Amino acid sequence: MQTVEVPLGVRSYRIWIGQGLLERLGAECRALGLGPRCAVVTDTNVGRLYARQACESLRGAGFDPVVVTIRAGEPSKSLRTAARCYSKLVRHRLDRQAFVVALGGGVVGDLAGFVAATFLRGIAYVQVPTSLLAQVDSSVGGKVAVNLKEGKNLVGAFYQPRLVLCDVGTLATLPEREYRSGLAEVAKYGVIADARLFEQLEANAAAVLARHFGLLEEFVARCCQIKADVVAKDETESGLRQILNFGHTIGHALEAVAGYGRLLHGEAVALGMAAAAHISMRVTGLSAEERDRLVRLLTVLELPVRTRLTQQRRRALLQTMRLDKKARAGQVTFVLARRLGEVVWGQSVPEAVVNEALDFISAGQSKG
Amino acid sequence: MQTVEVPLGVRSYRIWIGQGLLERLGAECRALGLGPRCAVVTDTNVGRLYARQACESLRGAGFDPVVVTIRAGEPSKSLRTAARCYSKLVRHRLDRQAFVVALGGGVVGDLAGFVAATFLRGIAYVQVPTSLLAQVDSSVGGKVAVNLKEGKNLVGAFYQPRLVLCDVGTLATLPEREYRSGLAEVAKYGVIADARLFEQLEANAAAVLARHFGLLEEFVARCCQIKADVVAKDETESGLRQILNFGHTIGHALEAVAGYGRLLHGEAVALGMAAAAHISMRVTGLSAEERDRLVRLLTVLELPVRTRLTQQRRRALLQTMRLDKKARAGQVTFVLARRLGEVVWGQSVPEAVVNEALDFISAGQSKG
Repeated sequence: MQTVEVPLGVRSYRIWIGQGLLERLGAECRALGLGPRCAVVTDTNVGRLYARQACESLRGAGFDPVVVTIRAGEPSKSLRTAARCYSKLVRHRLDRQAFVVALGGGVVGDLAGFVAATFLRGIAYVQVPTSLLAQVDSSVGGKVAVNLKEGKNLVGAFYQPRLVLCDVGTLATLPEREYRSGLAEVAKYGVIADARLFEQLEANAAAVLARHFGLLEEFVARCCQIKADVVAKDETESGLRQILNFGHTIGHALEAVAGYGRLLHGEAVALGMAAAAHISMRVTGLSAEERDRLVRLLTVLELPVRTRLTQQRRRALLQTMRLDKKARAGQVTFVLARRLGEVVWGQSVPEAVVNEALDFISAGQSKG
Repeated sequence: MQTVEVPLGVRSYRIWIGQGLLERLGAECRALGLGPRCAVVTDTNVGRLYARQACESLRGAGFDPVVVTIRAGEPSKSLRTAARCYSKLVRHRLDRQAFVVALGGGVVGDLAGFVAATFLRGIAYVQVPTSLLAQVDSSVGGKVAVNLKEGKNLVGAFYQPRLVLCDVGTLATLPEREYRSGLAEVAKYGVIADARLFEQLEANAAAVLARHFGLLEEFVARCCQIKADVVAKDETESGLRQILNFGHTIGHALEAVAGYGRLLHGEAVALGMAAAAHISMRVTGLSAEERDRLVRLLTVLELPVRTRLTQQRRRALLQTMRLDKKARAGQVTFVLARRLGEVVWGQSVPEAVVNEALDFISAGQSKG
């Protein structure tokens, strides 16, 4: 088992990473002095597998949990689902001492975190991420949100959890495609901050794909440590934190244009990273060899690096990027790599170069 | 013109109180370095009167405002209306440097503040309260919220504005009943923290009712100063800030049971204060004379101190109080006065005494 501290003054918290942590959920919440009422927000997939165990642990520690199950999938990350959650929290009489447990992947974590951030003007919440993506990324750092039809994560808050429990054992039940999607974010940490992690991924790709728990615990902890360091320096994404968005400018746009759920987040990020690597080659001096190493690693991890881009889809992509909440006065900026392990943020890129990067990830030609 | 500072570290801001301040809106926003895009959220009543002036001031200072008009009244303080606001903000391409101007009363301020707190995980907002209630209370202190069908303000945040402009000139157009409703909160400040303010209200009731602007500027500034002092000591209502809720435990319940909008907030608070004064007499030693002085002042200010309470309504009131977000594990607590100008919070009260207080404000008998 490993722990990572997220040092944010009065909002500091700890991340636990290891196997079998779910059974410690109740005890850790008690140690924080929360409760006694709580709500376990989960989805139809994860709830079936782990809600009982979570509730038993909570009850064993003297808590009174209610389970709130949302439908699995991105469409649940909505104001409508949040409204349904609030009603259940009211009915179970959660008060300001009560807390929310987010048991699931990124959708559950973002939604439940947003509900906790806004219910009664903010109650405590605990992240129990059960997907790789959520363990290495979305459960840490306090970015919570729901989507609008106009775009992802447009409504939300910066609101830190009180505790994050990453039980790598839960990754055993993750569907293959979701698992690989999470690996895209692991690779991202290599690119933005840790060339050694990148090399280890290259060297151990087969064991990683086979979900070797020891390796996973090590990798998840490394990713969480990088994220904690970044978040500690820039909690509200006014600067440095933007490096966590490597591959996300085009990635988010691809997700939005494909329609939520068609392309998994990590798949979109893999495509976005391939494109960003190409732009990095043109703008910040990444070598063609390093660009190709990233593309190769993503390919070995069975992630997409090519997609079909009609002219119509390209236009929609560029339009969506301009509407991204990180755009400033319509100006799209990118996180770009200087070399593997080092990136710069806030980079403006000529549209011609963006188009060239879209060519680079384009699987075929079409007039759309 | 007067100014009050709200000292909250990096979240500090200034309240301006005076006549004709609306025309300075643009210049003050520019001084804060906001923008250039912004949204003026207002309602169908206030927008007609002041939106043009607000926008002219903003445009004159180089801003690009869009007006978002919501229907006047409490039902607009909903997630549904918030969703409509978000869409307009997206369409007008507000980015993270953009800001929201809340131009209106408490409903507009609470809703627009909530929208600002959550749009793109939080953008800046400026309060331009145009009702007396909003000027002395809801625009200051960062409590923003929307209602659920289960209760008022159940979803929200603590999120401070960057600036509050109280143009007392806008009180000239306030409907009589709304104006008097605001006076209930002014009287509240007298009870909780300022016996002299209470006496001045007693002595100048006629001039106050006639909306003497000089007097209003003085009173609004005094109320804002008290609120700023309290908020500076307890931003998130973990202790002292609760004193601002004098009269609100029963007041909120009366509002909820009557149905939003039937009873204005200040009217409900007036009734709640009369009841709380009676409880204070039983529990914290307020004299009967002081209780009666409060009831008399409220009466002179043409606020209700008696209401019809059927048995059914009483039961609903008690049930609603237990569900209030300030209740802790179902335990209802009260803010009670020791004397005029001094209160204590977090007081548990036997149900028999609450019932006696309900008798005290009961206008007639019924088996309901």
